[in-house]
Amino acid sequence: MKIFEEEYGYLKSLLDKEITKVIKKTEPKLLYDPSKYILASGGKRIRGVLLMMTARMFGVDYKTSIHAAVGVEILHLFTLVHDDIMDHADSRRGFQTVHKKWDENVAILTGDILIGIAFENLLKTKTDNLTDIIRIFNNAIIEVCEGQAYDKDFEKKDNITLDDYYLMIEKKTGKLIESSILIGAEIGNAGKAEIKSIKNYGTLIGKAFQIKDDFLDIAGNENEIGKKKYGDIYESKRTYFYCNALHSFNRSDSAVLRKVYNEDKKETADINIIVELYNKYNLPFLAKKEITALINKSITVLKPFKSEYKTHLENIANVIGKRKH
Amino acid sequence: MKIFEEEYGYLKSLLDKEITKVIKKTEPKLLYDPSKYILASGGKRIRGVLLMMTARMFGVDYKTSIHAAVGVEILHLFTLVHDDIMDHADSRRGFQTVHKKWDENVAILTGDILIGIAFENLLKTKTDNLTDIIRIFNNAIIEVCEGQAYDKDFEKKDNITLDDYYLMIEKKTGKLIESSILIGAEIGNAGKAEIKSIKNYGTLIGKAFQIKDDFLDIAGNENEIGKKKYGDIYESKRTYFYCNALHSFNRSDSAVLRKVYNEDKKETADINIIVELYNKYNLPFLAKKEITALINKSITVLKPFKSEYKTHLENIANVIGKRKH
Repeated sequence: MKIFEEEYGYLKSLLDKEITKVIKKTEPKLLYDPSKYILASGGKRIRGVLLMMTARMFGVDYKTSIHAAVGVEILHLFTLVHDDIMDHADSRRGFQTVHKKWDENVAILTGDILIGIAFENLLKTKTDNLTDIIRIFNNAIIEVCEGQAYDKDFEKKDNITLDDYYLMIEKKTGKLIESSILIGAEIGNAGKAEIKSIKNYGTLIGKAFQIKDDFLDIAGNENEIGKKKYGDIYESKRTYFYCNALHSFNRSDSAVLRKVYNEDKKETADINIIVELYNKYNLPFLAKKEITALINKSITVLKPFKSEYKTHLENIANVIGKRKH
Repeated sequence: MKIFEEEYGYLKSLLDKEITKVIKKTEPKLLYDPSKYILASGGKRIRGVLLMMTARMFGVDYKTSIHAAVGVEILHLFTLVHDDIMDHADSRRGFQTVHKKWDENVAILTGDILIGIAFENLLKTKTDNLTDIIRIFNNAIIEVCEGQAYDKDFEKKDNITLDDYYLMIEKKTGKLIESSILIGAEIGNAGKAEIKSIKNYGTLIGKAFQIKDDFLDIAGNENEIGKKKYGDIYESKRTYFYCNALHSFNRSDSAVLRKVYNEDKKETADINIIVELYNKYNLPFLAKKEITALINKSITVLKPFKSEYKTHLENIANVIGKRKH
């Protein structure tokens, strides 16, 4: 068994190679040019790696799990392309977004076909549980859409609780991470109890992943995260910070928060005031603490598993906690 | 066996009832309100009926095929919701389109989740060929997107041939009709030769269906078709009429055609000039002739089938030729 960093790098490069190969067609260019562009745009490929590492823990080689891993990665890219339209995002991972480089119609269609291409790859998986993994995968599509709908809806509401926030992120971000792990377990013919534990692990790291995302938007390094900082504030996103602020800020700070979040166009000075308030109430520290708690719990959940490959899943949980982009 | 009109009406009402029941959830409202709205917006349910009638011809009862039929109908609705955004369509079947009644973001998300809901229903089908029908269904998603991309791309080109046109409509419209029939045949455990014939039938009626659509935009009754006439001219669509006009108009008429089609905003007077030109060159007559030829051929293709239920497929082909909306 290789050490974790090598193994992650190896799987990521396998996935990169495979993902850039999946589209053989060239026509219609209007559809396949942007599709290839987004498939080649990089990213951590964490969902695919998680799927393959989980399947490996249950004794399945990478050759068997890679198609499903490609499937979840492409499904993730579908969500990015459509979300970027809705969020008016100009760049992602340092690249122009599809709707910016082409136009909105092209981005809508590109996202749509990515769903088809994602399924196409998932369907290549050789497993007795194919219909089960299709169901998990499809359910992820449904819940990711629900999560995005909550996200867009919450932008217009200023009474969002932390419970609302967790409901939203469990669907929008958590579901596909959890599903990637579940699909890996199904390919590995995991038993009921094992599936329950591994699902729990997935839910916990999924939550941690999104809170970390919120954290990076406030406290990350713009060059490392590959997109503009404070995008969540500009877009009035109901993040871990905002939802915590709502119930911890004093009356006057709370009024400032609501005022800025209710403005359609926000000035840089206003953004800075919000960031200062978040710092004044120690919210970045609180977020870090929550992330660490979730990661530690996810590692505890893995205890019953005996395979040596378990350490990879422990390590990936730690990476989520420590990632800088 | 009931007579055709009764049977169609019965299946359509079965589908209407089932389709309006598929969404049990209410939250997030921003997603499920428009989804329920579009599911209840009516339509001919022709793809679902075709699927069920084909399965019936191969000896399968309606109870077994209905979930797949619901699946193809919902998949069709997904394409309508997204196409209407791209085509800037304000109404459809006499109803406001989703992006008009809500907004574009809601329409993007609604289309996305409809794909998931479509698969969810398809997956309820009890058949030994489940993975085969999933493959056919998913391939339809991919080709429908390709067809829509050609459609949007062709709007900007003024050298589109009839071959280009047929390539585009076989994907955009034909594929889902053909796939509905193929799925019906798979549920019915049809043999290889039978599948080949029935696929051919599907391709032919799919083509006829789209040419009829183009015909109705020029020569239909606005109240019956449920949307604004001449929408295809306003949107510079490369229809059967436009592609035929390109190679049959004389030089001066051709220049008028290109000029009007190249204008972003078209005046009513210009639209009327184009319609007159189409009539001057007898294009509505030519379209009718082509539709009849396709329908007749599709009925010939059905010859080898002996089931009494075959007459329903013959009748549905005729309905496509004669439909007024």
